[in-house]
Amino acid sequence: MTKTLNLKTEIIAVGSELLSPGFRETNSLFISGRLEDLGIVISFKTIVGDDVADLRAALGAALKRSGLIVVTGGLGPTEDDRTREVTAGVLRRKLVFSPAIEARIRDRFRKRGLRLPASNKKQSFVIAGAEVLENDHGTAPGLWVSRASRRIVLLPGPPHELEPMFDNSVLPRLREISPGFTLRRTLKITGLSESLMEDRIKGVYSGVPPNGRIITLASPGELQIIISITGRDDRESSEAALTGLEKRLRDRLGERVFSTDGESLEEVVGRLLSLRGRTVACAESCSGGLLGHRLTGIPGSSRYFLESLVTYSDAAKTRLLGVAGSLIAAHGAVSAPVAEAMARGVMEGSGADYGLAVTGIAGPGGATETKPVGLVYTAVAWRGGASVERSVFLGMRSFVKFQSSQKALDQLRLRLIAEEFEK
Amino acid sequence: MTKTLNLKTEIIAVGSELLSPGFRETNSLFISGRLEDLGIVISFKTIVGDDVADLRAALGAALKRSGLIVVTGGLGPTEDDRTREVTAGVLRRKLVFSPAIEARIRDRFRKRGLRLPASNKKQSFVIAGAEVLENDHGTAPGLWVSRASRRIVLLPGPPHELEPMFDNSVLPRLREISPGFTLRRTLKITGLSESLMEDRIKGVYSGVPPNGRIITLASPGELQIIISITGRDDRESSEAALTGLEKRLRDRLGERVFSTDGESLEEVVGRLLSLRGRTVACAESCSGGLLGHRLTGIPGSSRYFLESLVTYSDAAKTRLLGVAGSLIAAHGAVSAPVAEAMARGVMEGSGADYGLAVTGIAGPGGATETKPVGLVYTAVAWRGGASVERSVFLGMRSFVKFQSSQKALDQLRLRLIAEEFEK
Repeated sequence: MTKTLNLKTEIIAVGSELLSPGFRETNSLFISGRLEDLGIVISFKTIVGDDVADLRAALGAALKRSGLIVVTGGLGPTEDDRTREVTAGVLRRKLVFSPAIEARIRDRFRKRGLRLPASNKKQSFVIAGAEVLENDHGTAPGLWVSRASRRIVLLPGPPHELEPMFDNSVLPRLREISPGFTLRRTLKITGLSESLMEDRIKGVYSGVPPNGRIITLASPGELQIIISITGRDDRESSEAALTGLEKRLRDRLGERVFSTDGESLEEVVGRLLSLRGRTVACAESCSGGLLGHRLTGIPGSSRYFLESLVTYSDAAKTRLLGVAGSLIAAHGAVSAPVAEAMARGVMEGSGADYGLAVTGIAGPGGATETKPVGLVYTAVAWRGGASVERSVFLGMRSFVKFQSSQKALDQLRLRLIAEEFEK
Repeated sequence: MTKTLNLKTEIIAVGSELLSPGFRETNSLFISGRLEDLGIVISFKTIVGDDVADLRAALGAALKRSGLIVVTGGLGPTEDDRTREVTAGVLRRKLVFSPAIEARIRDRFRKRGLRLPASNKKQSFVIAGAEVLENDHGTAPGLWVSRASRRIVLLPGPPHELEPMFDNSVLPRLREISPGFTLRRTLKITGLSESLMEDRIKGVYSGVPPNGRIITLASPGELQIIISITGRDDRESSEAALTGLEKRLRDRLGERVFSTDGESLEEVVGRLLSLRGRTVACAESCSGGLLGHRLTGIPGSSRYFLESLVTYSDAAKTRLLGVAGSLIAAHGAVSAPVAEAMARGVMEGSGADYGLAVTGIAGPGGATETKPVGLVYTAVAWRGGASVERSVFLGMRSFVKFQSSQKALDQLRLRLIAEEFEK
């Protein structure tokens, strides 16, 4: 039986409210997580309203292209809950009254001192030939329908009803069908554009095994490569294949990869500082506090983070960081010498081992003839030296701010790694 | 032409990453909001991976059942970006090379001092007969394809590219097609729990007209009430109904409502400071720079924001803010007297009109017998006075940090409003 099953998988979430802009549909995230653990990859996710013709169209399309179809919602007692009837219609099966289900629902109401409302009556009908999935947290039972190589699963919409039903009744049935697993790693990268990364790694795609996948995600200042292997009885060789894939990517990306286990850049920097018993202080201009915010977002950061001085005005740069007014006058506040002086100033004032500084033009205003919006100088100072970098970041204010903080953190990360090698 | 158009609407989001359990697809939320403004109701939303056969199946199903199809993602430079080719195939049209698009992309790279990577080449191809939608924030142009009564719109996946393109190029075209509207206002609220707000406003629900809706959204530190009216030719009476609804909500919520036009709390505070020609400086401990980051997130904030001193260590509080070591020793760094001293210290040091301070325990560590995780003191100082408030915020570190900054900003907002009435 197992071998002939079609495991092309689709989730259909039913409910007009799920299409509203303010609403986030979450059942499918729960279900995809559970399916992925079993090595079942989802091919389609459809959200459809309560309209009968639309629901029929969605189910019809799914039956043509998918073998495992998980439908959520539309099993309730109200008039617009039509999933049961429409599915029966699309499958050309009858709805059959189940006295056992009615008794259970009636009993549920009686326990709360209530009579069975007429509207709940329809929940006692099941699609002919379907297995009933018990609902311990509501009135609507789920249904498991087999049709040749296909399986259609109907589940109630409320997450507190759906989730236990999925774990108790759906997972065991799926495990019989798919005894697989998915292994996954995420490489995080900064300091490369998406296309430059793509140019470096494109040779790797051809070496991806048929049961493996590479997904890339890009956001300003950070790229992710998610590699995964789906397997059945070969966990060890899958681990080895995943490690091989990771190595080939790392060979091409080198120190641009800052984590493979989900760590954020500020976590990586915090861990390196912590391991070496070092401290950092920041001097921020255009990042406006984001550098401090990110570093202090990590529990326990008070061990290595001393302070961050957000010196937006020139006067503050002089008063708090000791940046000479003549230096600002000569080069402008957005300049390499001022960035370096800020980093040194906060390091010396705070007594930290490292000073990290950002000065730039976040935009949309503030550009001059020679200094465009997005121009940012980042500096790291240490006992005995300093380095400054110049970048031009594209995009709106929030992106320039984020990329500034990302660049500064990465500069400190690379310095910490270089020092390790210098020893 | 307009009358024969099929406005059955569907969104297709393309990208294997969008099917992964950890990923939240947000473009469709943005698009549904914009479509709702025009009175266009969405019937289907489909998420499909990068697999060519799957994408073809999704597009094929959409073309059978929908007239306006908005496709997002898969226009990038990587090998798995195939939306352009597959759509052309499903529509049986050719892809045509556009030297103008190639020149634009090449220019974009040149501005950053980079050469055009080979992988970007395919972005210069357009579906025959399509109108090109310019991308001001990335390399992939969008496409607007007409086929009989149907319109197919291809948009890039990154939200910062998609959103301006939608507003600049798609909305004007849709406005010609759809003469309906939805009026919407969002009341933003802070300083109330969701259930307390619900208790205050529950009497309003029964007065909502049949073409109106109230949706409430809760997140830590901020509540939103979205009120909307959908109509066609009755814009004036709809405006009046919406204003009536807003007034009934405001009567019950008073100064807890900080904006009705989408303004964030930091924008409201910035606007009030700006209007009055006043300046602010911050002293942050547990908020770690978030207060400065939020205030400097607003373009033009350098007019009223001078500096923020993130004084994580006790030594920094004394050295930079002049908080007496004996005060910290007597009350602890997380205390009302220290919060007030921090606010006064930064006001005096910077010469700002207002000093804003936060000190607290963000967790998960740091609690003592008398001071729980989430205990936060916020203070605002002005020339002639100061106020301090004590809060205990629930939830993880990031929630405590956000709520701390929210509370401090709200305290300054209320002070600015009170001063207006004192005059």
